[in-house]
Amino acid sequence: MRTPVAIIGAGPAGLLLSHLLAGRGVESVVLETRTRDYVEARIRAGILEQSSVDLLTAAGLGERLRAEGDRHRGIHLQWPGERHHLDFVDLIGRTVTVYGQTEVQKDLGRARDEAGQPILYGVRDVALHDLGTDRPYVTFVDADGHEGRVDADVVAGCDGSFGPSRAAVPDAARQTWERTYPYSWLGVLADVAPSTDDLIYAWHPDGFALHSMRSARVSRFYLQVPAGTDVAAWPDDRIWQALDDRLGLSGWTLGTGPVTEKSVLPMRSFVQQPMRHGRLFLAGDAAHIVPPTGAKGLNLALADVALLAPALAGLLRGENRLADTYSDTALRRVWRCTHFSWWMTTMLHTGDDPFDAQLQLSQLRWVTGSEAGARGLAENYAGLPIDFAE
Amino acid sequence: MRTPVAIIGAGPAGLLLSHLLAGRGVESVVLETRTRDYVEARIRAGILEQSSVDLLTAAGLGERLRAEGDRHRGIHLQWPGERHHLDFVDLIGRTVTVYGQTEVQKDLGRARDEAGQPILYGVRDVALHDLGTDRPYVTFVDADGHEGRVDADVVAGCDGSFGPSRAAVPDAARQTWERTYPYSWLGVLADVAPSTDDLIYAWHPDGFALHSMRSARVSRFYLQVPAGTDVAAWPDDRIWQALDDRLGLSGWTLGTGPVTEKSVLPMRSFVQQPMRHGRLFLAGDAAHIVPPTGAKGLNLALADVALLAPALAGLLRGENRLADTYSDTALRRVWRCTHFSWWMTTMLHTGDDPFDAQLQLSQLRWVTGSEAGARGLAENYAGLPIDFAE
Repeated sequence: MRTPVAIIGAGPAGLLLSHLLAGRGVESVVLETRTRDYVEARIRAGILEQSSVDLLTAAGLGERLRAEGDRHRGIHLQWPGERHHLDFVDLIGRTVTVYGQTEVQKDLGRARDEAGQPILYGVRDVALHDLGTDRPYVTFVDADGHEGRVDADVVAGCDGSFGPSRAAVPDAARQTWERTYPYSWLGVLADVAPSTDDLIYAWHPDGFALHSMRSARVSRFYLQVPAGTDVAAWPDDRIWQALDDRLGLSGWTLGTGPVTEKSVLPMRSFVQQPMRHGRLFLAGDAAHIVPPTGAKGLNLALADVALLAPALAGLLRGENRLADTYSDTALRRVWRCTHFSWWMTTMLHTGDDPFDAQLQLSQLRWVTGSEAGARGLAENYAGLPIDFAE
Repeated sequence: MRTPVAIIGAGPAGLLLSHLLAGRGVESVVLETRTRDYVEARIRAGILEQSSVDLLTAAGLGERLRAEGDRHRGIHLQWPGERHHLDFVDLIGRTVTVYGQTEVQKDLGRARDEAGQPILYGVRDVALHDLGTDRPYVTFVDADGHEGRVDADVVAGCDGSFGPSRAAVPDAARQTWERTYPYSWLGVLADVAPSTDDLIYAWHPDGFALHSMRSARVSRFYLQVPAGTDVAAWPDDRIWQALDDRLGLSGWTLGTGPVTEKSVLPMRSFVQQPMRHGRLFLAGDAAHIVPPTGAKGLNLALADVALLAPALAGLLRGENRLADTYSDTALRRVWRCTHFSWWMTTMLHTGDDPFDAQLQLSQLRWVTGSEAGARGLAENYAGLPIDFAE
């Protein structure tokens, strides 16, 4: 097979890249190790920045998002006895939209289907070759066990943290930074109407809790648990009790319902730079991981791709400028979001040091009590505009 | 001796309290273990918040401060290759004033002299008694070796971190929080005109550096050094080289001159609460210590005293309300400043973790590039208004 752009990974980054490239008249082939059912069902992020909504809408993917997405004016920040609302519209004139990554994935899959995009699901043994030349290629074994090869002009690594793209960059050609956190999130999906209008981020001595939502009838919850926690240690009644303790507020009631999914999510920060190596370009989780507290992972992947599509289209026309600046430009946003995600995480998750707890409460009081503090959180959470300029 | 208020400590907090009480017709006696020459010569803080200037001015102590104090519109934040100015006047309409603690101390000493204030310098073996009754008393040995006793209605502990007041609160009646930092400041005073208009806070891989000033002809510098550093390891030429490396910027020259004082200052955060125990009231360093990065220590002591003077005057008239709320009211500012000082410190001091360095640089870029970020720093640095309300 020969294609201008070989895309490794059919998650939101890979599919949106394929879609945006097609809009610029550039063909691509997408390889994905998982099945389509798997990638469309896996529960991931649920908050879109306004810039992400604008990007998807501008790319013709906004119809169902507009109809079913749930626009939010802000978030609640809480600690025992106090719940404060930060209104992003009042603070900075921007909103966020609750729309699950599963839905973005399905919208992208449908759009690519309609365009007749070749996507090879269920491949294995993906390997990247000759990235230092202008004739890189990718080898793999397809779902039927046949060996395959894609020859390309460029390879886009959109295959997440554990895919072969990141690892294909030699150690001598990259710098990496990593932080693991001593806690994880227990994520819970439940068939119950949300008990709140906007998300509630709650600091509590027992640990952080987050009340999010997926729709008018489906709530999403997260509980801070120690790293390495076995989900079996959390039967449903323990989950509801912990949520009630940590999210509890006088005069407010938490609605409960059947738990339909629960899993433990590790918390990690990771950045690899540069985001380009020869003819390989990394986007999304392949280049960077943020802990989920700031809801940045999916948005950052979409923002990367918004930069990468015109950069690759230009490169294929022999115009190198955007391809040459892609890594530096993308990394500015990556580090901003890496810092913000770390900041939100360390402000809200409890540990062993009682001085840290006082610093967290002091910071929460400042963020909710000072307009500058509130705007600082809001502009990071609702997200910076994406620079679409070529 | 009998007095309404026994004040332990003749630093800025103790002397200002004595002065403000006198302005309300309340007499006091001040005990100090050091000599007057020592307390008036010791090199300490040099930045007054606008609120501190307003407070001193309202107390009739503003004449020399107004004439000799050097008002600054903001600060510079720097990292290698970039120096950014934050203009507090533009951001929040407030200024800071460079005026050494030594000068505040002398102004207060002169004002208390003129009022005939009894201040016993050079005392030792200070001990506090019967704090749980309404007839507390203080025993000591005076400078001539004679035993003395002050009987009072209330005792004000303004004797810093190592004085007897803090320690007089039983463990069961207090909570304490402490953080020691793995670095210290090497403080340097030099007879050379400052090479900058506003203070320069510089992040550098070798460690933090700060270019401050005391007057048009005296510069004050600080260098991050490992905790436990011996000042003998830093001859003058090594100091100038390190300052040049860390503060260096293309097109900018650091002026040098004779070093007149150098010392190593440990970095610590500490809070003890409540700030009242029976008839003992703590103010300033006796209750809390901040690392000096945010220039908050002296200002916080003055703000405590601004609350304490009317509280004690009320208590002596049989009106308990302000005395009863003193600790909670003061601690709101204490924790705000404790958090801010920790935040400035951890943003600017380098350590072993390369991920921390990237977080610091990302935060510095945000603080200097976002109006909300800049205002957040400015409003904390220039200081919240002091609530003078009784």
